[in-house]
This record gives sequence, structure tokens and C-alpha cells, in this order.
Amino acid sequence: MKRIFSVLVENRSGVLSKVSGLFARRSFNIESLAVGETNDPEVSCMTIVSSGSKQTMEQIEKQLNKKLDVIKIKSFENWQSVTRELILIKLRYNKSNREEILSICTLANAEVVDAGKRTMMIQMCDTPEKVQMLLDLLAGISIVEVARTGTLALQRCVDTEK
Amino acid sequence: MKRIFSVLVENRSGVLSKVSGLFARRSFNIESLAVGETNDPEVSCMTIVSSGSKQTMEQIEKQLNKKLDVIKIKSFENWQSVTRELILIKLRYNKSNREEILSICTLANAEVVDAGKRTMMIQMCDTPEKVQMLLDLLAGISIVEVARTGTLALQRCVDTEK
Repeated sequence: MKRIFSVLVENRSGVLSKVSGLFARRSFNIESLAVGETNDPEVSCMTIVSSGSKQTMEQIEKQLNKKLDVIKIKSFENWQSVTRELILIKLRYNKSNREEILSICTLANAEVVDAGKRTMMIQMCDTPEKVQMLLDLLAGISIVEVARTGTLALQRCVDTEK
Repeated sequence: MKRIFSVLVENRSGVLSKVSGLFARRSFNIESLAVGETNDPEVSCMTIVSSGSKQTMEQIEKQLNKKLDVIKIKSFENWQSVTRELILIKLRYNKSNREEILSICTLANAEVVDAGKRTMMIQMCDTPEKVQMLLDLLAGISIVEVARTGTLALQRCVDTEK
């Protein structure tokens, strides 16, 4: 099973190292990780996607809860959440494939954010599945560089309202 | 000075822990981190924003280069790159502030991606400065949860073309 952990931690140096060390030591699998500040500068949010047995997922939550720097953990499944990823792709292009690249961008709702005479950079922000779709569509095009965030997720509004 | 390190690493368990351990042990400051896959499933890309003296920045690059799992490092400054962040914000709303929230979204080019009867979730993908602007504009509104990626960056097309 795949599970998303949304972990609020103290925004201190060394916290990331402790949490990632926990996963490494116990061979817990990290499929994706996104770390960023919250609206409170003293608190960071780590979104960790992991997969494994139900027991492993429970172990992860238990072990994370033991860490002093961890303030709060929420765990939920994909269908209970809104998930988004951001990707930047630098492509080599020429006159003959420029139109094709632009039509793939239109199709996938991706956006050209920078361009030179030989390369262009496109940005897309969507579900992890759609981001993968874009990469698949670009398979024949010469990709120079890719930078991609891990999956970002929040529990859906209806699930969290009381 | 602030510097962006774009680090290609082997997509193996434990790599994140090694890299973040290096920063923690030497008290190098991580302002922001984004980790994601590239178009090659065996290679991940870590985008690390750090700040400190010129010497410290050189030390970081040197130390990262020594790590076995590190394939390639690029380092560059903010003005040489396209930077983007992704944020998801869950807000509590009511009839009296709904219009205000929607007009802030229009202003900041943010998008409502989920809504219940009491809460709504908005998504924004832009430069770190614009993301901060959105958070500032929402200061008076009750924020329930925030998830934010670290800064994602690629060197601008004109700088990398040869």
C-alpha cells in the first residue's frame, strides 16, 4: 500500500537529517519527499510518500511520532487527498520540432517559461500522473535537464471538515 | 550570499540521509530543499538553496562532490535561473470573506482546487517571491494547513546554450 505522511516539524537544522536517517536505518522506502516552510516560519512541513505493508506504514508513523522535532503527523491515502507536483524541463529544440513541442504543451497544460535559440524551458504543475504523462509525451524529444518536486498533498476539504 | 545547488544523485535509499547529514554535521544552512525523480528513474535531482559566505558555498560544493552517490553538481545564483515553488493552502471561509479570498486568488493567479462547505484549498505555482506575496495577502484569513515545496530551479536557457 502507498501512504502519504504530512509531517509538521520544527524548522531547525538537522531535522531533515534525523527524519531521513530514520527511513534509511530501517530501510523504509521514500517514494517522494517535499520539504517546505509553512505560514509559521518556525515550522516546516515534510510531505513523504512511502509504500510497503500496512504494518510498515504503522511502524513509520510510530517511529516518526517518537522524534522530538516532530510536532504533528497526518497520514492518508491518495484518494483522500489533493496531490500536486511541479516540474521544470529544459528541452533542446529546432525549427522542425518546435510546433510539436508547443502542441504537447497545450495538450498537457504546460507552459513555456524561458527560451533561448536552441533550448526552451517548460513548467507544469499538476497531479503526479499528469506530470508523468507529459514526460511520456516528450519521450522522443531531447531533454537536457529535469527538476521535479516530490508530491505535495493535503487532505481533501470534505474529509477534514467537522 | 545565496546559492542554488542542483545535484544529480543516484536514486537509492539512504542518499538523502547522507546529503542532509553532511549539511547537519557541518552546520551548513539549508534554506530550501526539493527532491524528485528525473526522466531517468535511476537518477534523482535535489535542488538545495543555501546561504552563507563565499567560502562556505565553495566548501558545500567540494563536500558534495566527494559523496559517492553524487553524479553531478551545478551551482548558480538566483538571477541565472528560473525558480518556481508550489504551494497548497487550506483556508476556512464563510459567506462574508469568500469574495475577498476569490479576488486575492485572481490577483495572485492562484486557483481553487477543492472546496467543502467550510474550507477551500487553493494552489499556486510561481516564483518564491510571488508565493510569499500570496501568503502575505491571506494574512487576515484563517489558514488551516499549508504544504509547500522547496524552491525548484534550472539555469536559464541563454546561460547554458553553447
